[in-house]
Amino acid sequence: MTVATTALKIGIAGLGNVGGGVVKLLAQNADLIARRAGRPIIVSAVSARDRSRDRGVALDGMAWVDDAAELAKRSDVDVVVELIGGSDGPALTLARRTLSAGKPLVTANKAMLAHHGMELAQIAENAGLPLKYEAAVAGGIPVIKGIAEGAAANRITRVYGLMNGTCNYILSRMEAEGLGFAAVLADAQAQGFAEADPSFDIDGVDTAHKLSILAALAFGARIDFAGVAAHGIRAIEPADIEQAAALGFRIKLVGLAEVQDGQLFQRVHPALVPLDHPVATTMGSLNAVVVEGDFVGRLFFQGRGAGAGPTASAVVADLIDIARGDVRPPLVMPVADLAALPRAPAADRRGRYYLRLTVADRAGVLAELTASLRDCGVSIESLVQRGTAANGGAMLVMVTHEAREADVLASLAHMAASPAVAGPPVMMHILDF
Amino acid sequence: MTVATTALKIGIAGLGNVGGGVVKLLAQNADLIARRAGRPIIVSAVSARDRSRDRGVALDGMAWVDDAAELAKRSDVDVVVELIGGSDGPALTLARRTLSAGKPLVTANKAMLAHHGMELAQIAENAGLPLKYEAAVAGGIPVIKGIAEGAAANRITRVYGLMNGTCNYILSRMEAEGLGFAAVLADAQAQGFAEADPSFDIDGVDTAHKLSILAALAFGARIDFAGVAAHGIRAIEPADIEQAAALGFRIKLVGLAEVQDGQLFQRVHPALVPLDHPVATTMGSLNAVVVEGDFVGRLFFQGRGAGAGPTASAVVADLIDIARGDVRPPLVMPVADLAALPRAPAADRRGRYYLRLTVADRAGVLAELTASLRDCGVSIESLVQRGTAANGGAMLVMVTHEAREADVLASLAHMAASPAVAGPPVMMHILDF
Repeated sequence: MTVATTALKIGIAGLGNVGGGVVKLLAQNADLIARRAGRPIIVSAVSARDRSRDRGVALDGMAWVDDAAELAKRSDVDVVVELIGGSDGPALTLARRTLSAGKPLVTANKAMLAHHGMELAQIAENAGLPLKYEAAVAGGIPVIKGIAEGAAANRITRVYGLMNGTCNYILSRMEAEGLGFAAVLADAQAQGFAEADPSFDIDGVDTAHKLSILAALAFGARIDFAGVAAHGIRAIEPADIEQAAALGFRIKLVGLAEVQDGQLFQRVHPALVPLDHPVATTMGSLNAVVVEGDFVGRLFFQGRGAGAGPTASAVVADLIDIARGDVRPPLVMPVADLAALPRAPAADRRGRYYLRLTVADRAGVLAELTASLRDCGVSIESLVQRGTAANGGAMLVMVTHEAREADVLASLAHMAASPAVAGPPVMMHILDF
Repeated sequence: MTVATTALKIGIAGLGNVGGGVVKLLAQNADLIARRAGRPIIVSAVSARDRSRDRGVALDGMAWVDDAAELAKRSDVDVVVELIGGSDGPALTLARRTLSAGKPLVTANKAMLAHHGMELAQIAENAGLPLKYEAAVAGGIPVIKGIAEGAAANRITRVYGLMNGTCNYILSRMEAEGLGFAAVLADAQAQGFAEADPSFDIDGVDTAHKLSILAALAFGARIDFAGVAAHGIRAIEPADIEQAAALGFRIKLVGLAEVQDGQLFQRVHPALVPLDHPVATTMGSLNAVVVEGDFVGRLFFQGRGAGAGPTASAVVADLIDIARGDVRPPLVMPVADLAALPRAPAADRRGRYYLRLTVADRAGVLAELTASLRDCGVSIESLVQRGTAANGGAMLVMVTHEAREADVLASLAHMAASPAVAGPPVMMHILDF
């Protein structure tokens, strides 16, 4: 119970929304944090692109450093907090220099960890240094700690959830207001809830970054970001949301990682989640993560996954751990012990699937399409056909019984080639766990 | 990153359901745990009342100790795991002796911590020893870690949730099957889901134990179990569950702790929770805990709150922390820094209330009762009156607008004294956050 009276001095690189939040949090809750950390935590130096910008926080007494990488060298910096962002460039340079200089690193940078996490973890481990990143996944929710420490006694077989607030916000508004994807995205951008270039969010890349980190932690495996297949939410239409609801589901962008037979499956995709599942009831910009362990069962975490306050909360939690002297391998176990798991082929997965097609409204079409499914060994659990005002055609929505993914895809390809089918069919996974 | 090759040797006192689970978990996941803990964790000695009982787990190689307190003295025991239970007696003796002997203690004993946690925390702190108790609250859900470490940067203003699986199970079955409390309890007892003496569970005492621990952690306060007002679920009738549902709520036994104006409010009571609140969607024997922090916002944790597997998961997570050398004050900050917060009077609380009365079905009764509410300054948001087959009377259900609790109680007392009212009125709180 060493209560050091000497402060832990930190240098912050990046003073955007989150960086400003960390400065504000450390000032506002300074007394509380000092007692919980056993010593004060103070910001001694900062670095950002624009020195003149008003960030709404006092930077008095903090040295200003133009080149972020300089923070690693300063004698008044014990720990570097990297909030620059981006998988490479100045963030990566700073991360390498910080650890090489023998200083602990705290980062919120999921892209950098997804791409260079193995290298950084090895450097940190060799030097016996903390490399902490609670803020990189699901913002303020302590899921890194929950998996790495809380569930550490378990063999974890599955981890999944909603890790992108922008997507969840868009899907929630599409449902609540019956609006199309493009309209909600444009409004979200106008209000600052979505980035000017939203592709990392809406195409599932951001979720893939985060998922690859959680999977490594959960399964004792090497980070394999390249092994995550990412599908986004651009193709989802209000009709899908309505039909899913009628069937008892809500559509969510789910990041899912599983280990089966020693193979690692990682995918980001829109999925139909049963309405009574806690993931389905996670609305707006909230995030949620589920961990399934062999002894603990299903653990569910929900909270705010982005924003200055929640992200700063996670960054400072890491700093408190460092102030307490808690040093563990960045990925729970030594890098050499992490398994390089082969990737599980998606083709062999089994599950139920939601299919939507726009078809010609004439006799024989249904017989043709259902025959195609039958020929591929896919049986139908439910089917709804509705006339659409748009083109005189009909919308056909089907839910399959449990089927092999490759068989469903083969059938879909066959149906898509039919002259009776207009436009590409939509397929979504049903989350049955 | 010290990876010790020497094993951490533990002694387990109490080999019931949970103790057996810990032995099984440490054996089954031994390799995984050794890598995550940085060293093997092995059971070197055990103690329980009945040596001959078959527990379904192998105790080979473990010394058997008849007197649990002897575990504290043994040279082959580095850490003691106390799973005896009970606030005093052998559990407390063992806890004191373990810490006094300079050994870390892991316990699942909420009753002991609620009553003697301050004393034990002080002994541990003085000796610089870990005293860990993740399993004491909400079983396998890492809520102790979530509050003490995950949310450590925040000023926490409220913590609440469902911390008793038996109550949640009974209420869930009453709703699903339309059965009365007594019938469900009897069946739960027959199936082993409820204790032979269920009073600690159904009268809210168990929840109060857990709540007092969470409140201390969350608010940096001394444990004040005696300050928790505990009300249970015996008086809840199927009619209440139905009426709550019609109004958009589900009845849950909620443990709630808040700090307002430097005063601590702690209460366990049945409450009407809005159906879209994550606490309301926590069904069966699941537990749930909500923490509200000034920067992180609302954090929600859900999972299995009891049973051998989840509880063992939490116990072993604590052991892994100890193996990693993570030593922090048991209640986050030094005992001397914990505030002795004055208790907030319930009378001054404001909220909405659910009221149910059985009344005579004759002219003038409604006017009399509503006048009583008006005279106490309580206004009515909604009112339903229904004839009941039982006694020719009527059931009157009201939801008040926000009102002062003392005013609602005064009005209730006045109504209860009316000859038009049969039996005691039922009052429940509405959870509006």
